[in-house]
Formats: sequence, C-alpha cells, structure tokens
Amino acid sequence: MSDAAPLTKTALTPPTHTTPPAKFSHGVRKGNILQVAGQVGFLPAVEGQAPAPAGPTLREQTLQTFANVQAILEEGGASWDDVMMMRVYLTDTGHFAELNEIYDQYFAEQDLQAPPAARTTVYVGLPKGLLVEIDALAVLG
Amino acid sequence: MSDAAPLTKTALTPPTHTTPPAKFSHGVRKGNILQVAGQVGFLPAVEGQAPAPAGPTLREQTLQTFANVQAILEEGGASWDDVMMMRVYLTDTGHFAELNEIYDQYFAEQDLQAPPAARTTVYVGLPKGLLVEIDALAVLG
Amino acid sequence: MSDAAPLTKTALTPPTHTTPPAKFSHGVRKGNILQVAGQVGFLPAVEGQAPAPAGPTLREQTLQTFANVQAILEEGGASWDDVMMMRVYLTDTGHFAELNEIYDQYFAEQDLQAPPAARTTVYVGLPKGLLVEIDALAVLG
Repeated sequence: MSDAAPLTKTALTPPTHTTPPAKFSHGVRKGNILQVAGQVGFLPAVEGQAPAPAGPTLREQTLQTFANVQAILEEGGASWDDVMMMRVYLTDTGHFAELNEIYDQYFAEQDLQAPPAARTTVYVGLPKGLLVEIDALAVLG
Repeated sequence: MSDAAPLTKTALTPPTHTTPPAKFSHGVRKGNILQVAGQVGFLPAVEGQAPAPAGPTLREQTLQTFANVQAILEEGGASWDDVMMMRVYLTDTGHFAELNEIYDQYFAEQDLQAPPAARTTVYVGLPKGLLVEIDALAVLG
Repeated sequence: MSDAAPLTKTALTPPTHTTPPAKFSHGVRKGNILQVAGQVGFLPAVEGQAPAPAGPTLREQTLQTFANVQAILEEGGASWDDVMMMRVYLTDTGHFAELNEIYDQYFAEQDLQAPPAARTTVYVGLPKGLLVEIDALAVLG
C-alpha cells in the first residue's frame, strides 16, 4: 500500500445514538475496516434523558441492539453483508436458545446477499438491567 | 484498493463441523482477513446426533478446539502462522496454568514459521460441560 | 494485493515486558494490521522476579495497562490514533464509572489527532489481584 494515500480514521456517530459515556467512538472506519463498539439495547437518544433500554426482555433488547449496530454500519457505508464477526455477550446461559431464535429470525428478514458473519457467544456480567451486548467487525469492499 | 475487484465474503464450513446452532458461519474470509467463530471441544459432527465434547477434561476439550479452529483456517487457505489473535475463554481461573501447558505443547508441535499470535484469556460462563472456547483472527498473504 | 510482496508477521516485544506465560506474542503486526494481546497492570519486567501489578487500585492498574498497550503499539510503529478497538475487561460492574473517568482523563492527555477507538467493556473473571485487562486492534497507514 506504499503508493496509497494515508488512510483516514473516521468516527461513526449515528444521530440515534446517545453520547458515549467515555472518550470512545460508537464505531470507527479506517480504509476498508469498520469496527462497531459494544452496543446494547438502548432506545434512540432523547436529549436530556438518561439512556433507557428498549424493554426488560431479551427479545426487545436484542432487536434494539441489532438496530444500533446496523445504524453504525450504515453510517460507515457498510451493511450486515460486510460483517465478519459478531461478538454476543449474554448474562445467562439459559438465554442461548432464545437468543438463537431471535438471531435467526432477524437475519432471515435481512435478505443477506453474503454468508452470515462468524460469531462468538459468551456469558459475562453486564450493567444492571442489560441482558445482551453485541459488537461487530466489518470488512468493506 | 480503488482499482481492485470487489472482495468476496466466503463462508468456511469444514466437513467435520456440526451445523451452527444459528444463522452464523464457523468462519468467514474476505480479502486477506479470516475470522474464525468461537470454537469449542466438539468432536466431528455425526449426522443425526447432538454435538458432543471430546471429553470432560480441559486437555481433551482444548486439543479438540484447536483442531476445530485449524480446520476452519485450512478451509480458508490459512494456517496457524497467519493467526494474529487467539481469544481464549475459560470458565475457571484455576485452569490458567494447565491451559498454558497444553497451549505451549500444542504450538511447539506445529512447527510455526512465524511468531505466535497475540492472545487474550478471560474467564466467562460457557454452556454446561464446556470448559474452553477459542476464536481467532487471521491475516493472510 | 496480488502484486504485493508477501506480508511478514512480526512479533512486538517491548523491552519493558515480561516474557509471556505461554507461547503467544504481546503483539503482532502483519501488513497494516496490528493486534495487541490482553495487557494487565504489570510493572515493567524485572529479571528473576515474578510479574507484579502497579498497585491494588483500579487507577494504578489501568494506567499501567495503558502504558503496556502503548509500548506494544509503539514497538509496531503505531500510536493510539491507529487503534480501532479497545476491549476492556473489568471484574466488577461497580468499577464502570471510575474506569470511564480514568479513561477520559488519560486520553484527554494523549493529544489524539484522530477520533478515539471504539470500545467494548464487559465484566469477567481475571486472575486474583487483577482488576482490569485491555487488548487493542489497530490499523496503520
């Protein structure tokens, strides 16, 4: 890539998103690599209000999380088809089957043209009230 | 890369692998980036049977997990030498020393030509009976 | 990239770092991709002594972890500006607010020229005495 112009790193900040609680970006793109930060099921930001999850259920939070990931992908000119890896963080192994059901149904509706991303699902602690967090790595082009 | 043909995203599905339990790929390659999904110590798939771990011990499961990661790398034209990052998920901090012993012995036998990958090891929850999960990011070329 | 010379994978081993406890690299670079292994708050290595954390507090450990990540980035010719993703592993959800405070203050002092990296923070188990672990993915150029 010696002849290429320097790559620019761009922050991806969809208008729907709350301000990050620290000095990080919701997503960044540099060259053809796009990284989405860990997203949770927060509803679109409302000025002056604290972020609120879409609801208490895994389904509500996962669907909102997908919407939040997708908004960042689109802000960077990417789509689900460009995603290489989804990292899914759940809080309870008992949620695995339901997560898979929601996951399958969601992606069946996305009309993907490329094979689905790889995925790792592990069970961790998350802030109180949150049942799922997802981040994504995409390669465009 | 403006002159290059569009990159194709390819699913990597070794014949030894069980069908993923959801709409994700065991591995994907796009351009020179290859991502292996979280692998566990499941034995090669047997049609009509549920996936079964190679055994109850960390050693059995880790060695089978390595074999499962390697099968996906090879399906994508890569080898251990191309791996940049290994993410190792254990369930018990008490397994760290034994994991390292198994890890070292395994990679000593792989006759690597390049330096070993970076690694992060953290302790999470995994589905019942599973002691280890590993995913990998590779850069080919 | 068909006309390019084969990419070389290089291990990044800052002189400040202890020998990894297993066959992995503290960081690797191949082409314009640089991966930093999970770093913790260990002080610079002292020959013949076991690795020791910078202190018992989240602040001491986080600042030392940043220094350890940065040393690997610099060893590979990169800087914080090249970092796409920071993965922060904490052991206690109660540490989130303090981590963010330390994080913000640290990066405010780094005089970044590019937008900050994306980030995922999850709560996992870590070896006894360690409160934080961080790894990083960078894209140079």
